[in-house]
Amino acid sequence: MASAEQTKQAPDPLTFQTSPDRYRHIKLEVDGAVARIKLDIQENEGLKPGYQLKLNSYDMSVDVELADAVSRLRFEHPEVACVIVTSALDGVFSSGANIFMLGTSTHAFKVNFCKYTNETRLSIEDASMHSGQRYIAGLNGIASGGGYELPLACEEIYLVDDRRSAVALPEVPYLGVLPGTGGLTRVVDKRKVRRDLADVFTTLAEGVKGKRALEWGLVDGIFPPSKFTEGVEARAAAIAGEGHPERKGITLDSIEPEITDDAITYRHVRLTFGSQARVARLEIDGPSNLPAIPANASDLGADWYVLRMFRELDDALLRLRFNHPDVGLVILATRGAIPEVLAMDTQLAARADDWFVAEVTHHMKRVLKRLDLTAKSFFALVDEGSCFAGSLFELALAADRTYMLESDAVQIAISPMNSGRLSMSNGLSRLATRFLGNPDQAVLVAGLTEPLTPDDANDAGLVTFVVEDLDWDDEIRLAIEERASLSPDSLTGLEANLRFAGPETLETKIFGRLSAWQNWIFQRPNAVGDRGALTLYGKPESPEFDWRRT
Amino acid sequence: MASAEQTKQAPDPLTFQTSPDRYRHIKLEVDGAVARIKLDIQENEGLKPGYQLKLNSYDMSVDVELADAVSRLRFEHPEVACVIVTSALDGVFSSGANIFMLGTSTHAFKVNFCKYTNETRLSIEDASMHSGQRYIAGLNGIASGGGYELPLACEEIYLVDDRRSAVALPEVPYLGVLPGTGGLTRVVDKRKVRRDLADVFTTLAEGVKGKRALEWGLVDGIFPPSKFTEGVEARAAAIAGEGHPERKGITLDSIEPEITDDAITYRHVRLTFGSQARVARLEIDGPSNLPAIPANASDLGADWYVLRMFRELDDALLRLRFNHPDVGLVILATRGAIPEVLAMDTQLAARADDWFVAEVTHHMKRVLKRLDLTAKSFFALVDEGSCFAGSLFELALAADRTYMLESDAVQIAISPMNSGRLSMSNGLSRLATRFLGNPDQAVLVAGLTEPLTPDDANDAGLVTFVVEDLDWDDEIRLAIEERASLSPDSLTGLEANLRFAGPETLETKIFGRLSAWQNWIFQRPNAVGDRGALTLYGKPESPEFDWRRT
Repeated sequence: MASAEQTKQAPDPLTFQTSPDRYRHIKLEVDGAVARIKLDIQENEGLKPGYQLKLNSYDMSVDVELADAVSRLRFEHPEVACVIVTSALDGVFSSGANIFMLGTSTHAFKVNFCKYTNETRLSIEDASMHSGQRYIAGLNGIASGGGYELPLACEEIYLVDDRRSAVALPEVPYLGVLPGTGGLTRVVDKRKVRRDLADVFTTLAEGVKGKRALEWGLVDGIFPPSKFTEGVEARAAAIAGEGHPERKGITLDSIEPEITDDAITYRHVRLTFGSQARVARLEIDGPSNLPAIPANASDLGADWYVLRMFRELDDALLRLRFNHPDVGLVILATRGAIPEVLAMDTQLAARADDWFVAEVTHHMKRVLKRLDLTAKSFFALVDEGSCFAGSLFELALAADRTYMLESDAVQIAISPMNSGRLSMSNGLSRLATRFLGNPDQAVLVAGLTEPLTPDDANDAGLVTFVVEDLDWDDEIRLAIEERASLSPDSLTGLEANLRFAGPETLETKIFGRLSAWQNWIFQRPNAVGDRGALTLYGKPESPEFDWRRT
Repeated sequence: MASAEQTKQAPDPLTFQTSPDRYRHIKLEVDGAVARIKLDIQENEGLKPGYQLKLNSYDMSVDVELADAVSRLRFEHPEVACVIVTSALDGVFSSGANIFMLGTSTHAFKVNFCKYTNETRLSIEDASMHSGQRYIAGLNGIASGGGYELPLACEEIYLVDDRRSAVALPEVPYLGVLPGTGGLTRVVDKRKVRRDLADVFTTLAEGVKGKRALEWGLVDGIFPPSKFTEGVEARAAAIAGEGHPERKGITLDSIEPEITDDAITYRHVRLTFGSQARVARLEIDGPSNLPAIPANASDLGADWYVLRMFRELDDALLRLRFNHPDVGLVILATRGAIPEVLAMDTQLAARADDWFVAEVTHHMKRVLKRLDLTAKSFFALVDEGSCFAGSLFELALAADRTYMLESDAVQIAISPMNSGRLSMSNGLSRLATRFLGNPDQAVLVAGLTEPLTPDDANDAGLVTFVVEDLDWDDEIRLAIEERASLSPDSLTGLEANLRFAGPETLETKIFGRLSAWQNWIFQRPNAVGDRGALTLYGKPESPEFDWRRT
């Protein structure tokens, strides 16, 4: 395959930057300590032609706005302590992911769409848990499919009890697929609904209403229509209290890279498509001359290297996923000075109690998780001029392999940021996961304060291979060629299994178990064949199934 | 679909009964406290024509023998304390599942084959852990793919260091699929091999030899060829010691049901295919007039109801999986007297320290896990004449739903057997899993000593629905029809997610995560398309991949 072909972006590249003044589908209201995200999805403003976003059904254009709103609440409106997720439509909360959009999408797009929506829902839970912004769902009408999975990502769910409004996960009976945005996992593992009741619920197209929904644990409270708004607002006010008036928000600007045929260039991050087919290079500049963190840390604003660089990295990863499907291997490189990275980490640790520093750290954590969950191979190259230290060494720990040049001029370094504040989806630090079989080594390595030479790094188990200068070019080229020659599907499965050893969490269950099953079903003729249930949804014909159970 | 069609067995029904005198592929040697399972696979005696089992590669015909040998060692040779798994071939341990067999099998067969081989390997680990029969692997030659996954199920692995013999998981580079029998999970989660080394290992077709295999943690010891047999035998002798001379084995007879067009009839178990398409009924007789357990419990022999019935149930479940793919829903029914079941459980609990009683209990546990892992829906019907109590109530707890008839004549009951001795793959009892959201209720229910009426059972959360007599027939019929109308693939994915809430274990990771990814890949054109890697293995053409990463 010619290089020119592989560097080409998908025909309609997706972008992930938006702002409230550009929102088409959601309304973000901030009212003191309480905020409201209201779904008000415009039928005719979906991402692509060919479907209408009726009944507050959503596509990526909605989810990009939702992710943006959740992020802006954390950074721009940190005084908020409770967020109500509700709908601007009468009688309908949301009918979930748009079926016609799903029915006309490629397998790869469906999988990436579900992954992104899952990450957004997990970012909601992360905000509830770590940012003092507790999300509650006010279901003023039917919440069906993904329209119930979004509330499931909130900590409390309130449903209007009007003899009509229900919560439902009708994917199995209607579409022959699974609720793919964490619904099954959250029903039995987060809300701990009894499995037999969950079985009934998830096979009942019309869902469950009112008192029964409450009894089964599917919602936390019900209100008659006349008391609904009042009841939800009262609950939000009680949760929010005074909010966080001491926090002073910043403004997030738009991350707009320069895009050419062979590169996407940000201020601190460069994504380049080189001469090798199916390979991209993601190069990250370390910090330089960072200012001291002022008394009010958020005075640093959105230009602060730490926030800006990770926002750029996030954007680059999303573009890689959606717009560069042919890229199978990403080379991770860094450029900068190790002492500057370590100084940055010292600053972050010293001010960990500051809300803004904490918020930026949680953002770093989420971006690194996004990298762990990206279905591409990652090789980290530690060569001259690199600065894989502390927070930036997480990139090497997240990589499938690390190659380090045997040279006096090349080092890596550990910092306290490697010991849990940037934890993986499995709840462990990348160091702890790496040394699962040797916890003593994990502790020993975590305590290292001096940079390590290639030999020391190798002895400590922190790099995969140390390569001599003379062999470097050939060995790296061969390793890249070999990786880029392997079946992309088998690599996706391989990496999904090898990257997450150790304990399982709600997150790893969603991405490892639920998503894998959904991906399987998303390929089955019973769902996507000519006579499959997803294909025929909304058409007069009934699906025809191959009844053999697998 | 006509009922006659669905009750029909697959054209070549598989059977699961064998015995050492009928083995074609393995040699079982018992030598005091040490036993040896030697792979000596006959190329031309595979299950089906069209492939040759070269280089100790295996198909179902081999795995049925392996499962039988593991079971017979536990019951017939309980004095054995260490089992060496090795090969009778010079220079080759095993090259894993036969590729040509996989290449010519249906998707459903591949999935069921992998599930069965996984269960067999888990039964090896169960024997090491619970039966005092520790398995070690003596790799006297190359162990590749499934040929290394079998050793991974052993507690120790020894490899001959002859500059030629390697351990390898070459599925990704050779076949574009995953090592599907737990290999990836066991490498990083059981042996805790560092993930970057695991990445290198699983993409290296030729595998890893000798000292490097030892350093990476892929094996536990290496011996030069001249010392190999001696070294492995010495290790086995040290593990085995005196063995378990106090245990007196029994003889397992063959379970041969009577088979007609519409029923498979065992002594205590009946599997019938009725008038409703895609539905089977699995009816189990409770015990009656059980003898007291004698001082030497194994004098009860293989005819003891508890062992016999669960062996029959196991056979019926395997036949359902492999020979009745059209069956999507299984009705679980019991016939007998609750007091007799409770008396049986009291006996089992009182003699839990006896090796034979313990062994039978572990067998019950494994059969119930097999039910949990069967890709069919299960509805338990608690009606007049049923005896869902204690051990047999586990069937209802394993079911996706339980319907109980509202009648004075119908009860269920709990026994101490419901409190952990028949644990699920997630390590919890079915009661604890059921009440994950309400641990107090789990404790309260576990302490119930009297049978429960339908209303009490409902209040305790132990059944899904209580149905009045007048409505019973209609409601059950409708529930069955509705279930049998849903997409079989989506139900498989649904059940795989709802059945295993709570903690994840090696087992649930293998079945939930690894298998789901393998199933996905097993359908991808890059593996099984005309130009896929699995299809073209061994042919002169190279595979052609769709390079898009998903």
